[in-house]
Amino acid sequence: MPDQPPIRSLKEGDPFAGILLAQEAAFKTSAKGSEYLELKLSDASGDLKGFLWDLRAVEGPLEPIQADAFLWVKGAASSYNGRLQLRLDKVRFVPDGDVADVARFFPVSARPVPEMLAELDDRLAGVADPWIRRLLTALFREDEDLRRAFATAPAAKSMHHVYLGGLLEHTLSILGMAARACDHYPELNRDLVTAGVLLHDVGKTAELSYQRGFGYTDAGNLLGHISIEAEWINREVGKIPGFPEELRLQILHIVLSHHGRLEFGSPVLPKTPEALLVHYLDDLDGKLEVMFRALREEGAGAWSPYNRALDRMIYRTRWPRAESVQK
Amino acid sequence: MPDQPPIRSLKEGDPFAGILLAQEAAFKTSAKGSEYLELKLSDASGDLKGFLWDLRAVEGPLEPIQADAFLWVKGAASSYNGRLQLRLDKVRFVPDGDVADVARFFPVSARPVPEMLAELDDRLAGVADPWIRRLLTALFREDEDLRRAFATAPAAKSMHHVYLGGLLEHTLSILGMAARACDHYPELNRDLVTAGVLLHDVGKTAELSYQRGFGYTDAGNLLGHISIEAEWINREVGKIPGFPEELRLQILHIVLSHHGRLEFGSPVLPKTPEALLVHYLDDLDGKLEVMFRALREEGAGAWSPYNRALDRMIYRTRWPRAESVQK
Amino acid sequence: MPDQPPIRSLKEGDPFAGILLAQEAAFKTSAKGSEYLELKLSDASGDLKGFLWDLRAVEGPLEPIQADAFLWVKGAASSYNGRLQLRLDKVRFVPDGDVADVARFFPVSARPVPEMLAELDDRLAGVADPWIRRLLTALFREDEDLRRAFATAPAAKSMHHVYLGGLLEHTLSILGMAARACDHYPELNRDLVTAGVLLHDVGKTAELSYQRGFGYTDAGNLLGHISIEAEWINREVGKIPGFPEELRLQILHIVLSHHGRLEFGSPVLPKTPEALLVHYLDDLDGKLEVMFRALREEGAGAWSPYNRALDRMIYRTRWPRAESVQK
Amino acid sequence: MPDQPPIRSLKEGDPFAGILLAQEAAFKTSAKGSEYLELKLSDASGDLKGFLWDLRAVEGPLEPIQADAFLWVKGAASSYNGRLQLRLDKVRFVPDGDVADVARFFPVSARPVPEMLAELDDRLAGVADPWIRRLLTALFREDEDLRRAFATAPAAKSMHHVYLGGLLEHTLSILGMAARACDHYPELNRDLVTAGVLLHDVGKTAELSYQRGFGYTDAGNLLGHISIEAEWINREVGKIPGFPEELRLQILHIVLSHHGRLEFGSPVLPKTPEALLVHYLDDLDGKLEVMFRALREEGAGAWSPYNRALDRMIYRTRWPRAESVQK
Amino acid sequence: MPDQPPIRSLKEGDPFAGILLAQEAAFKTSAKGSEYLELKLSDASGDLKGFLWDLRAVEGPLEPIQADAFLWVKGAASSYNGRLQLRLDKVRFVPDGDVADVARFFPVSARPVPEMLAELDDRLAGVADPWIRRLLTALFREDEDLRRAFATAPAAKSMHHVYLGGLLEHTLSILGMAARACDHYPELNRDLVTAGVLLHDVGKTAELSYQRGFGYTDAGNLLGHISIEAEWINREVGKIPGFPEELRLQILHIVLSHHGRLEFGSPVLPKTPEALLVHYLDDLDGKLEVMFRALREEGAGAWSPYNRALDRMIYRTRWPRAESVQK
Amino acid sequence: MPDQPPIRSLKEGDPFAGILLAQEAAFKTSAKGSEYLELKLSDASGDLKGFLWDLRAVEGPLEPIQADAFLWVKGAASSYNGRLQLRLDKVRFVPDGDVADVARFFPVSARPVPEMLAELDDRLAGVADPWIRRLLTALFREDEDLRRAFATAPAAKSMHHVYLGGLLEHTLSILGMAARACDHYPELNRDLVTAGVLLHDVGKTAELSYQRGFGYTDAGNLLGHISIEAEWINREVGKIPGFPEELRLQILHIVLSHHGRLEFGSPVLPKTPEALLVHYLDDLDGKLEVMFRALREEGAGAWSPYNRALDRMIYRTRWPRAESVQK
Repeated sequence: MPDQPPIRSLKEGDPFAGILLAQEAAFKTSAKGSEYLELKLSDASGDLKGFLWDLRAVEGPLEPIQADAFLWVKGAASSYNGRLQLRLDKVRFVPDGDVADVARFFPVSARPVPEMLAELDDRLAGVADPWIRRLLTALFREDEDLRRAFATAPAAKSMHHVYLGGLLEHTLSILGMAARACDHYPELNRDLVTAGVLLHDVGKTAELSYQRGFGYTDAGNLLGHISIEAEWINREVGKIPGFPEELRLQILHIVLSHHGRLEFGSPVLPKTPEALLVHYLDDLDGKLEVMFRALREEGAGAWSPYNRALDRMIYRTRWPRAESVQK
Repeated sequence: MPDQPPIRSLKEGDPFAGILLAQEAAFKTSAKGSEYLELKLSDASGDLKGFLWDLRAVEGPLEPIQADAFLWVKGAASSYNGRLQLRLDKVRFVPDGDVADVARFFPVSARPVPEMLAELDDRLAGVADPWIRRLLTALFREDEDLRRAFATAPAAKSMHHVYLGGLLEHTLSILGMAARACDHYPELNRDLVTAGVLLHDVGKTAELSYQRGFGYTDAGNLLGHISIEAEWINREVGKIPGFPEELRLQILHIVLSHHGRLEFGSPVLPKTPEALLVHYLDDLDGKLEVMFRALREEGAGAWSPYNRALDRMIYRTRWPRAESVQK
Repeated sequence: MPDQPPIRSLKEGDPFAGILLAQEAAFKTSAKGSEYLELKLSDASGDLKGFLWDLRAVEGPLEPIQADAFLWVKGAASSYNGRLQLRLDKVRFVPDGDVADVARFFPVSARPVPEMLAELDDRLAGVADPWIRRLLTALFREDEDLRRAFATAPAAKSMHHVYLGGLLEHTLSILGMAARACDHYPELNRDLVTAGVLLHDVGKTAELSYQRGFGYTDAGNLLGHISIEAEWINREVGKIPGFPEELRLQILHIVLSHHGRLEFGSPVLPKTPEALLVHYLDDLDGKLEVMFRALREEGAGAWSPYNRALDRMIYRTRWPRAESVQK
Repeated sequence: MPDQPPIRSLKEGDPFAGILLAQEAAFKTSAKGSEYLELKLSDASGDLKGFLWDLRAVEGPLEPIQADAFLWVKGAASSYNGRLQLRLDKVRFVPDGDVADVARFFPVSARPVPEMLAELDDRLAGVADPWIRRLLTALFREDEDLRRAFATAPAAKSMHHVYLGGLLEHTLSILGMAARACDHYPELNRDLVTAGVLLHDVGKTAELSYQRGFGYTDAGNLLGHISIEAEWINREVGKIPGFPEELRLQILHIVLSHHGRLEFGSPVLPKTPEALLVHYLDDLDGKLEVMFRALREEGAGAWSPYNRALDRMIYRTRWPRAESVQK
Repeated sequence: MPDQPPIRSLKEGDPFAGILLAQEAAFKTSAKGSEYLELKLSDASGDLKGFLWDLRAVEGPLEPIQADAFLWVKGAASSYNGRLQLRLDKVRFVPDGDVADVARFFPVSARPVPEMLAELDDRLAGVADPWIRRLLTALFREDEDLRRAFATAPAAKSMHHVYLGGLLEHTLSILGMAARACDHYPELNRDLVTAGVLLHDVGKTAELSYQRGFGYTDAGNLLGHISIEAEWINREVGKIPGFPEELRLQILHIVLSHHGRLEFGSPVLPKTPEALLVHYLDDLDGKLEVMFRALREEGAGAWSPYNRALDRMIYRTRWPRAESVQK
Repeated sequence: MPDQPPIRSLKEGDPFAGILLAQEAAFKTSAKGSEYLELKLSDASGDLKGFLWDLRAVEGPLEPIQADAFLWVKGAASSYNGRLQLRLDKVRFVPDGDVADVARFFPVSARPVPEMLAELDDRLAGVADPWIRRLLTALFREDEDLRRAFATAPAAKSMHHVYLGGLLEHTLSILGMAARACDHYPELNRDLVTAGVLLHDVGKTAELSYQRGFGYTDAGNLLGHISIEAEWINREVGKIPGFPEELRLQILHIVLSHHGRLEFGSPVLPKTPEALLVHYLDDLDGKLEVMFRALREEGAGAWSPYNRALDRMIYRTRWPRAESVQK
């Protein structure tokens, strides 16, 4: 993949040869009975439809050519009905082991991961409460597997922040807003809020599978991320001698209640100000990300298409900002 | 009322004579058939039960002694089953006109009104967009009746910020959080958000009656505060030549959608980021106020009584804040 | 379009040449990679699928051939699998300006508009209350733009009365039933009911776009028709000196509450008999229209297909009417 | 009861002796430990609280003095806290058999029963369809027990038309509106509508108990009135040789679906225009009756108290009717 | 059909000639404009797609070749993209009368019908209560049409036990569990439970049409199976002189309430232990059947596809059973 | 307490002296201003109202006389309005330490605890799967604190099985039904079901407080019993080397999903047959217990009072069981 161009940069007529991820792969039959292969191919820059009209041009066996496989393809970009597609001459399956950097085939956060990890460490360093800092350090600094997963996972399977690094980006964004909220509402316990925000979705690293496409793991489907993170908190707390039971309850409560309502999968309602705040800021940040993404989409009219995550269309006409001296 | 002590300052055995507001007034009959008068009496500091066991001690007619009437009472504080009450010797109806400062009999915001109005004016001065500033100035500075009402009204009949000045206090608190949110999410239009926050509940000045007790006006019951404020915005916009239609739509949309869901009385869902933000911060601020109030209530255990506004009990045990140098 | 036959009158083998509205237009690719054009073409009489198998037969540019465009087409009706379609030889884009009478390409009310306007005027003339008559006259007789729009708009984007003139037809039908209900329930205020019925959906003229296909305007999506008509009523009332505030509240209340439930977009529930009546008769008339339309559809079995507006199938078997002397 | 005055006609100080129905009866204890009897006593004109302060004044045994018993009482009307009550000197149980006309102790319809029965017979005579007429005649004319019950039962246990004769009054009112609706919507089958209206609540004669107070029978609680009337229709249809199966289905469908929604106890949704109409007119008539009753209640402000049947307060201020020549 | 192989037994390349049921039949057009016939063909063993690429190979008229028709087809099994299909050379319509055993073309219960009927008779013989036994015997033994239908009908149109004999299999399975429950909870009336289980879905024999495909009859759509079976119970009870009214109410109550909630179509909630039990065991048995079927489906991963009946995916990984001596 | 009689055995006029639990305690004032003490006093046999009319008869301080305190009382049973009460001459606070056997003051299961524990051990011995047996043995045999609590706790704070030992009784009853269900549905994994049933409510021992009255602990309110038991399962599994992860997921899934719906507090839906079964049998057993209790209540009519747990009245008329030879 070193030399291959991002597919979003292709123009009509450009030749292309390189490895792409098949997000979808279907053998179809034409009306006359001839078979062809229809693909949805992606790298980190985006995706394109691809068509191979003669199956004899497949090199090697047909069977492994499936969704979630890497494929080496050769062909050219052609425009059809105003949309670019790849008309292919050759297709060949590529084992995962032969692909240098798998993550480069997925959508990723616009923020660089090292920058985000540095911000995370700053937040951890700012925690004054010794018990909370110890718990968070154990999980987010010392558990290297978790730290790596936390920096890689998307925030959701669909809905919002659906890209690698999305979980960390979403968490840091809530953390930023939460810090401002603690400045505004002095009754809040800042360190407790920090713990709640950092832990509220950490179980998604085990709930979601994101090595290929984005889906749920067995544990994710059977337990849900809230139960998974409760389990991890209990396990880490168990390793810290003398960890106060009251603090364990307060933290677990924020995590368990952060979906805000039973029908959204929280077994309890938020009953402390910190739990209430984390619920609202989490919900707000996810929904705003969806809206901002819709605003940035190209080639659009005043209204976004119907958005399933928000169950509405989004109004994209923006009232221009007035720049002023006094601000 | 100049010399009379706040009733919250009374101790067992203290005599009391002065004017109080009767929030409740009921003539009851005892098992033996004798009648007595049971009152709930309040000034701005709080309320107490009052009992007059011999109706012949009422001076003047009985009829006007009703809920929402001012009464001159004389008696003494006595303790009964751990709670203070007023055992009365004399009760007399007082016409409203004889009461110097009616507002002093109601619960009021802890923040002084002049301070809040100054903060409001600062916010108005900070609006850069000329159209938005003109609209807000017309309503909140130039319309003196509205300005006065806006500084006096409670934020709700029950639920949250139920005291004189509560509407302004609630609005300013959201405005503070909203300013922080605009720092955090730069895509937001700050002036549009300011307009939405200031206008979102302004119709409550006409929806609620708060001269005596807190209730709804006819217009409040028949139209609701959202329709009332939409009417006012349209009326003021109509007086500003050239006011942009697009801006009118954007502002009205925030106001109409700020309850967030149709079943909560918003005829449309929030479809812009600014509308979404105003909805969330409004909801959050109201609910946090309820929680903080519950935390401050005296003589309580770890759990508040069932809270109807939040449909849950609130956990009052606080995890202590760690004070630290590095923050 | 003067000489072109209504497409519903075509029979297999009939040639056709004329202007039709493209409700849908898609360039598709066949299994072998050749491109073709698939259209849904309509005039006021109905719609047909159309196919152009060779894109070289398009005269002029391809780009403007889109949904909602007028097209001149030439070809012949052919029967395929029991359904008529148009097999096309020529297709050409036609600018709107070249189309004589745009409205003739849409489904229209079965009742002639002049007849309906005459009935409207009769109803207005029958209003005894001078304030109500003045308000209604200002809107429905003197505001010629509104009168024209009111006579043209459909009653909804989908659901019921989805054709030009549908709003007026629906309004008059409710008005007829409402007059009968006022005869039956003498406690009702007849003029107030008339005002409520006439105004309850008038904002749909601005909520819906119906120049091409039927959709929502920006104002429709952002405010909803209820808020739009409340705005108009307030504006007109403001022009009538001395208009009684009590009457303004009563009328606005009917309009605001006519969806009957908060989750259907009414910010308040009907709290007067007149408001309750308007809600029920509006709902009933819309749903009956859906049922009667389903009964009239041809080529059908005992059951209509699943009807999305009513969330059920409709039973089309009719029990025959007994004609009798004594009636 | 011949000579005893209606209790609604009593004034302060009036003596009273006669038989009343005890809607409630409770032996209570005073703070000092003495026992007294508190009653809610009613005749057809209304109800009053009654107090007997000395139980030794009860003639005969105490046990039968219970809710739903008839009592002979003697005492005087006294005013307490603005409300009239009966202060009693004597109380004695009266067996049902000793009460001449039990029905005179309950609230009754304002319309005389014979007048209503005559209207019912007119409606029956107007049915042109021979099968429908035969079915309705069998039930409402020939089955004398049912006819009598139909003329006596209330329309509901609470909610609306809660008085003797209320079921017939409610049914006739719907029938009147339905006749007007059939004039307005000519597609409707008038006789089918008549059948549906007459039968839709007839099972309430067996669902409700209304000999004493208003409650549910065992069959009412276990089956509901809809299933009861379906049973009766099937039984009567079975006695009419050749009754068309299609008509049986159409009638049963109206009856089964007339609550309009599954969660209101209809096992199927209305799927014919006639079923839809009956559902709407039934619902409308019941709710209007509640509103009109609230408007007529005396001594009230602009707003009714919270009304449980409608889940709202009702606005009682009426906009005056304009009387006009041209109507 | 005597010699034709079950289509599930076909392998790639196998020739096939015989009669199959067309569950779906569509004439389609290829991109080039040629027409072909696409079928979904089934016998009791399963179904396969079938394609006839040249319509001239249809013998006889095209019109009757529709969904739900029997067709004689000739062709060969071919594998396409890993799935078997039938590539056809000849297709001919076959009138129903020419098909020997129509039922053999539908999915059927895995349990032989005679075995199930024997179990049914055993259950009937075990009923000790004479009234209940008489009622059940009249319906399930003496009414031969009903007995036959009861042994043939599916349990539902979709959802669960969707195959011929499914109703009886489902009923017997609940009966087995119910017998065990009566052993466990001795307060239950065993014979009443038996009656409730046997009758709870018997109306499905008239609600569903299952001669061809599975759908609803007119009576099914207009009345629902619950009302149908209530009707039948009343009819049979009417034929048994002296049948106790109390027992009729108890049995009807179980049947009417067995969907457990009003929104699921039961007009009353279960109010006796027997009614509650029948509701739970019915619901449980249907849902378990769905799960067990999902577990048995071949070629599957750890998770079933989304299951509409249960609104979830089903986890198919099984924890192996430990076989042990002591059990 | 050795010699004092159960209060349920008292008859009018019986003297009583002994220790009782005050479930409620209120100092009230009479109309004349004298104070008295009203108590609700209980032992395991039931509860009675108690009145002390002269507060000077209290021995020792007044303050500790509160709800949930033990009191020594002396007085006599007197009948008032058909109900027994205790008229007291002496009342004295008793410290908990002075009460021999606290549990004897609460309602208890009708089944003796040793018998229930023996049945529990039998069930444990019958588990064939070595991993499951080891897990269950660790929790229910080796953890003596848990075993004791499991044998003592009620099953709920209200709703069903609200008495000491109720949790174990409820669990064993489900276990019995579950064993029968595993006989009936052979696809079920019996040992997995056993684990699920035993663990599904075990966290209630920490969720509920039942030392005095029945309420929720802090952990119960903040986490809920489902999260508590998930925590315990994870902790015990962590102590068993090599415990299979798949089995851990399967067991946790049953526990987490056993409320069956998200809005009832389960964060995931049941997705395995075992999870589905445990949910249904748990729900059924709790509701049947409520019904059977209502049937057994004395002095009742055909209908129970409105039952909040089931949101309905329960029909208490029983159809008599037929005893027969052939069963």
